[in-house]
Formats: sequence, structure tokens, C-alpha cells
Amino acid sequence: MRGDEIRSAALAEFARRGYEATTMADIGAAVGIRGPSLYKHVRSKQELLASVIDATMRALLAEHDAAVAGVADPAERLRRAVEAHVRFHARNRLEAFVGNRELRSLTEPHRSEVLGLRADYERRFRRLITDGVEAGVFSVASPQLASYAILDQGMGVAVWFRDDAGPAENEVAWQLAEFALRLVGARPGPVRSP
Amino acid sequence: MRGDEIRSAALAEFARRGYEATTMADIGAAVGIRGPSLYKHVRSKQELLASVIDATMRALLAEHDAAVAGVADPAERLRRAVEAHVRFHARNRLEAFVGNRELRSLTEPHRSEVLGLRADYERRFRRLITDGVEAGVFSVASPQLASYAILDQGMGVAVWFRDDAGPAENEVAWQLAEFALRLVGARPGPVRSP
Repeated sequence: MRGDEIRSAALAEFARRGYEATTMADIGAAVGIRGPSLYKHVRSKQELLASVIDATMRALLAEHDAAVAGVADPAERLRRAVEAHVRFHARNRLEAFVGNRELRSLTEPHRSEVLGLRADYERRFRRLITDGVEAGVFSVASPQLASYAILDQGMGVAVWFRDDAGPAENEVAWQLAEFALRLVGARPGPVRSP
Repeated sequence: MRGDEIRSAALAEFARRGYEATTMADIGAAVGIRGPSLYKHVRSKQELLASVIDATMRALLAEHDAAVAGVADPAERLRRAVEAHVRFHARNRLEAFVGNRELRSLTEPHRSEVLGLRADYERRFRRLITDGVEAGVFSVASPQLASYAILDQGMGVAVWFRDDAGPAENEVAWQLAEFALRLVGARPGPVRSP
């Protein structure tokens, strides 16, 4: 439990001050542990950052896998994957903020590990899109750019989403899934009159 | 000229170390000015951050206005606006990175000024989309979410775009403009066979 509490305090401090400007003493003060005692629980600030970002990526991958499990239709798979992506970013805004902002503060081997998980996650979306193209139900010139665009829409949610104002999580998840389906050409749009 | 050089060095230091962790001495060292002499050119680190972010937003707004000037067709206006947005983010990656990451390090009145410019920019996209809906050529349940999604796609470009690898700027600009037009329902998608 102490470890979780420390990681949670570290996340809040990293979000507020930035990783570079945060000291172990700041994190200790946030959980009421003074000086060297903190090192009984965690080895270093770098390890805390790595563990926060790694846990976030693994949770995101798990939600993705659960969302698409047992679904065969490419459009339905993409819809579920986008909804899971959007809901995760609406619910884990601090984690997403720190994960993106402090990626360059990670040292090796942490940096490569996290970049590997991110590449994994992107590949799953690219594969969903390619599957739909091969099944003849999506029409996309570049599955890579389509997956980047869809992922970026969802990551943006972590930046602007608010619990107390603006569109609710359901509306955002449903609309962004609809946008993704339109983007890959899975939805007939209205025919444009010139 | 000295001011530009200092702002450019400040941008690079803010991107590399983060605003909080950057000192005026770091910025001075980057341009070869020692100690108090730097204050002949700039008042404070905060002023440097504000001036970098403010200049970026004003440049983005100017590019947007130039892109849509004299164009009446809603789809063509949106296409041009998205291309300008994407190209700006492909070309000004450090500025976008620092502008997003350090927004919360801005103090008043700078913070409100920049948030005002960002809101202005978002409103222009929302207006383009609403115009298309009213003209009967776009079909969108939430112009607000559509504008957020389109803007987030473009801001993502600043994160992943590389000059030396991956899709070139033209391909990214054209594809993301196509995605935006599909997203607002301006393009007929292929009819899906169930």
C-alpha cells in the first residue's frame, strides 16, 4: 500500500511541477515521509517515473484487449477500441499528461520499454484498420496516418476533458468512435451537392 | 536581433529541460551572455515563456486566416484550414511542444491572454464546421467535438512528425485534411456491406 501511495503522490507532483523540478523530498513531504526513509520504499525518482508510465501503458493495453476480445466485425472492433481509448484518456488525465510530457525524462532501459509498449498499442490500431481495408469495409490510403489521427483524437481528450463541464464521457466516447469510423470510410457520408 | 536569439535559445532550453528546471543562467549560457547582462534584453524567464507562446499562437492564427481568405465553399475552407494547421505543427514542433507542456507555467495576465488566443482559434474551426452544417454539406452532431478532434489530430503531428523518416509533410497535410472532411461527413464514404 505504501508503494501505491508514493506512486500516486509522485504522479501528482510530476504533473504539477514537472519531473525535473520535482525532488524526492517533495514526494516525501506529500506522503508525510521525511528524508532517507522514502528510500526504503522506492529506489529513485527515475524508478517512480518509469513505474507510473509503465503501469499506465499496461493498463491501456489491457483495456484495449478486453474491448476487442471476441468481436470479429472490423467496424465493431474499431468502435470498441476507440471507445476504450477515449474513456481511458478521460479517466486517466494526469497519467496521460505525465506520460506524454515526461517521456523524454525517462532513461534507459525504461525509455525503450515504454516506447515499445506505445508502438505495440499503435500497431494494434493499425492492424484493426488494415483488417477492415482487407475485408473491404474500410477505405484508407494510409492505415498508419489513420491510426495516428485516431489515437491523437483520444489523447487530446486527456487535455480538454472535464468532469464538471462540457460534454460527458459517454457523448465524447460515442462521438469520437463515430468520427473514427467515418475517418476510415466505414460510414457512408451524405453525398455532397456541388 | 539579440532578442530573437535569446527567445530562440529559451525555447530550446524550455523544450529540453522544462520551464521550471531552466534558469536564466542556462539561457544566458546558450547565447554566450553572462549573468546580469541578460536582463538588459529580457525582463524575466516568465516574460520569455509568454513571448514564445504568444508569438506561436499569433503566427498560427495568421496562417489560418491566410489559408481561408477569399474561399467561400465550406469544404474547401475546412480543407485549407486543416492543411495550414497540420503544416504549422509539422514545422513548429518545439513551439507546439513547449506551448502545450508549459501552458500551466504561465502566470497572469499571460495565461489568460494565451487561453484567449487558443479559444479564438478553436472557435474559428467550430464556425467553419457550423457553416458547413448550416449549408447542408456537413453532417455533425457536435461541431465542438468535431473541432476538438480535428485540432487534436493536427497537434499530434507536432509530436510524431519527423523530417528524416515517415510520411512527408505533403502526405500528412493532404491525408489529415481528407480525414477531417470525412469526419464532418463532407465526403461520401463507401457504403458498407453488412
